[in-house]
Amino acid sequence: MQIKDLGEFSLIERIAKLLPPCSKDVVMGVGDDVAVVDTREDHYLLFTCDIQVEGTHFPASVSSYQLGRKAAAVNLSDIGAKGGTPSHFLVSLALRTDTAVEWVDEFYMGLIKEASQYDANVIGGNLSCIQGPQVIDLFLVGKVQKDQLILRKGAKPGDSVLVTGRLGDAKGGLTLMTRQDLKEKLDAKEADALVQAQTAPTPRIKEGQIIAQSGKATSMIDISDGLAQDLLHICQASRVGARIYAKHIPQSSPLENLAHLLGIPAWKLALDGGEDYELCFTAPAKKAQQLAREVEERTGTLVTIIGEVLPIERGWWMVTPHGKEIPIRAKGWNHFKDERV
Amino acid sequence: MQIKDLGEFSLIERIAKLLPPCSKDVVMGVGDDVAVVDTREDHYLLFTCDIQVEGTHFPASVSSYQLGRKAAAVNLSDIGAKGGTPSHFLVSLALRTDTAVEWVDEFYMGLIKEASQYDANVIGGNLSCIQGPQVIDLFLVGKVQKDQLILRKGAKPGDSVLVTGRLGDAKGGLTLMTRQDLKEKLDAKEADALVQAQTAPTPRIKEGQIIAQSGKATSMIDISDGLAQDLLHICQASRVGARIYAKHIPQSSPLENLAHLLGIPAWKLALDGGEDYELCFTAPAKKAQQLAREVEERTGTLVTIIGEVLPIERGWWMVTPHGKEIPIRAKGWNHFKDERV
Repeated sequence: MQIKDLGEFSLIERIAKLLPPCSKDVVMGVGDDVAVVDTREDHYLLFTCDIQVEGTHFPASVSSYQLGRKAAAVNLSDIGAKGGTPSHFLVSLALRTDTAVEWVDEFYMGLIKEASQYDANVIGGNLSCIQGPQVIDLFLVGKVQKDQLILRKGAKPGDSVLVTGRLGDAKGGLTLMTRQDLKEKLDAKEADALVQAQTAPTPRIKEGQIIAQSGKATSMIDISDGLAQDLLHICQASRVGARIYAKHIPQSSPLENLAHLLGIPAWKLALDGGEDYELCFTAPAKKAQQLAREVEERTGTLVTIIGEVLPIERGWWMVTPHGKEIPIRAKGWNHFKDERV
Repeated sequence: MQIKDLGEFSLIERIAKLLPPCSKDVVMGVGDDVAVVDTREDHYLLFTCDIQVEGTHFPASVSSYQLGRKAAAVNLSDIGAKGGTPSHFLVSLALRTDTAVEWVDEFYMGLIKEASQYDANVIGGNLSCIQGPQVIDLFLVGKVQKDQLILRKGAKPGDSVLVTGRLGDAKGGLTLMTRQDLKEKLDAKEADALVQAQTAPTPRIKEGQIIAQSGKATSMIDISDGLAQDLLHICQASRVGARIYAKHIPQSSPLENLAHLLGIPAWKLALDGGEDYELCFTAPAKKAQQLAREVEERTGTLVTIIGEVLPIERGWWMVTPHGKEIPIRAKGWNHFKDERV
């Protein structure tokens, strides 16, 4: 059997079963985006890593400055989804020997730009040569107050499902990067906004912290693999079902215009397109509206209730704008089964 | 300018200059094998990572079990060289989609085997596909008592230079892996011992801790790039010179036999061959002998005084067995300038 027959998530489950029990200080090991380790202080340590491969996560043509920013943002987003504060990066790079020195300079300039917005430092790393696709692997350390940690698990039936920002723009941007014909049909500013969402996502650090500090949220994840897949990650970890409403999924007008050109409903781009790096979280229905307003007021970021958590036996459903219930399936990004760029 | 014109170490220096100052809790950032971060407890946190690339660090033919063990050992060795205790691994893998599931299983079995000897856990990671050489990147967290941290910097003129174990065997093993003709001329057990040194190095965790706890050592590094290069790393960080004696470099009889077949002095294989993962450290001359005996008694690992630290203006010298002084040059592994396997 090859790993493409298994797919990314089944392979992770298989690996998790091989691992011996962790030491007692490990609050969360394999099974979340972030590992959580106890300390004798008032906080947990958070550890995450994200490997980015040329030809898989990014085309060779993307600027290294953008690549540095995005590689940082993707990791920062994971810490944000735990309600945490990012602190220190380690940077592993496998580079071809004919790479321009300026390419490396600009990669670090992008990385530093993104990291410093959240007071995170680069404190180490490792360089290697590779005769093939270039690889960027960032490790990020962070911390979170012990009473403010939010995991994938914790959602309860009766909770509302909420998201920050607008969804699907990153998928729209990815589409435009390979479809010049569509780009020309859109307003230039709108096209730029979509491409920007793909190449320079904003990690929701402050939003994650406010959600965590509120004490109201029960689970959280950042949307890297698409709303459907990441909501299912929450449901799987929390052992719950969910129902979300297409008409409540917040979407931008550029994305709606692009979806119109593509002849598909915009919500499909949000459901299955990944890399929005918005937060998806749950909170008891009675507190959800107030929490949404609080985050909006303190950050200016839109927060929307898009559905509700169900008992697990009720399953996972999306209600279309026409009121039809369709099952939510994970069609988002799955390494080894999908190939992209 | 391309990165091969600059080489690994000049590129690291260039990157270090781009980085803004670190936050106050960073005791050691870029410039050592391990980043060191302060805590409000009695210890520092240690962070290291090592990226291993197929075709650069290992041939496609090596067993994934061995690969898992060695990837873990290489990182453990870095923590050992700080006098630290390893604790938690994150594992990033970029794999081809046609990789056998068993290959992944065995990689983790090797990794777990090595990590568990030192009570370290795997607590997370990241998987990606790659259309090219497979990449393994391990991130290791550890800790060290604040009064026991040893860095590359700290060596002083008048100190002795010491090493654990015997040097050059890993280079000997690498040579045998591509020279079946030489392997057949050696005793089978001797050949296996050399190959073993290359494929399954022993990280010197306990030795590093004893050296650190003694309070006698002034600097330390693990020998990953070759004795010459890693001693020069200590000298550069400590701003000192050094003189070492070829006749004092501890070498195994299998390596001496191989060197004889190759028609070169065995000490050359130790000086420039990397991946021994022994410790090279310094201590005041008056305390060096006692420290060496203490480590030997408590671990059974050979410790040898091979030379002395000089003022920086005296330079870096190797005394050959014939009493000739030759300058030490870094001819060890340098990514982007060298290509191997």
